[in-house]
Amino acid sequence: MFRIMSIREDDSKMVILMRNDLKMGKGKAAAQAAHAAVVCALSIKKKDPAAFDRWMLSGQTKIVLRVDSERDLFEFKAIADAQGINNAIIRDAGRTQLEPGTYTCLGLGPDESSALDKITGELKMF
Amino acid sequence: MFRIMSIREDDSKMVILMRNDLKMGKGKAAAQAAHAAVVCALSIKKKDPAAFDRWMLSGQTKIVLRVDSERDLFEFKAIADAQGINNAIIRDAGRTQLEPGTYTCLGLGPDESSALDKITGELKMF
Repeated sequence: MFRIMSIREDDSKMVILMRNDLKMGKGKAAAQAAHAAVVCALSIKKKDPAAFDRWMLSGQTKIVLRVDSERDLFEFKAIADAQGINNAIIRDAGRTQLEPGTYTCLGLGPDESSALDKITGELKMF
Repeated sequence: MFRIMSIREDDSKMVILMRNDLKMGKGKAAAQAAHAAVVCALSIKKKDPAAFDRWMLSGQTKIVLRVDSERDLFEFKAIADAQGINNAIIRDAGRTQLEPGTYTCLGLGPDESSALDKITGELKMF
């Protein structure tokens, strides 16, 4: 008698697309991902509390993937907008390392993993 | 006639202490920082909405600093607890890179910058 543990196809997650073409230190990138995660979490909590709860209860999974340009960020944002996927693009205040106002990353979701994989499934880990 | 823009001493921020002794890739570390930021943001929003609003309005600043052991994480957590500073220690689910349940980082605040600097002012950027 044993129970099979598996990751359900419709698990919920958040995906963060981080620009790899910028010269960000790892702490800087971590702070940008944190910005995206907070904005996306708060906005989904307001817009769709049930989706927020599903994500929190399933371990608030977050995955950080790489993109290679500002243009990529905006292309993925346009796709997310078209599909009604919660998202937030992040600009850095630019006190250190980057020019003020640099777009650094895009938070997507939280949403069903399958929906996000359709958009970002080809991207590599940051 | 001009206006002096300055960073106020009592600006609000969140500080995330990240273990530098673990073999985390930069995307993994970014996801851990994002976990800490979301947990800290949600808990301060519930416990102290005015502090949450001050932090959001002042640009939801986040700084990621390095510590070098699990023990450091817990020592800083104990200090934060003793001083009534909102905090959250993060364990990784351990699906990749780390052993399941590894303590990876500690989120502190958001709180007054001066209060956090007293605790973490000696630490280096992650």
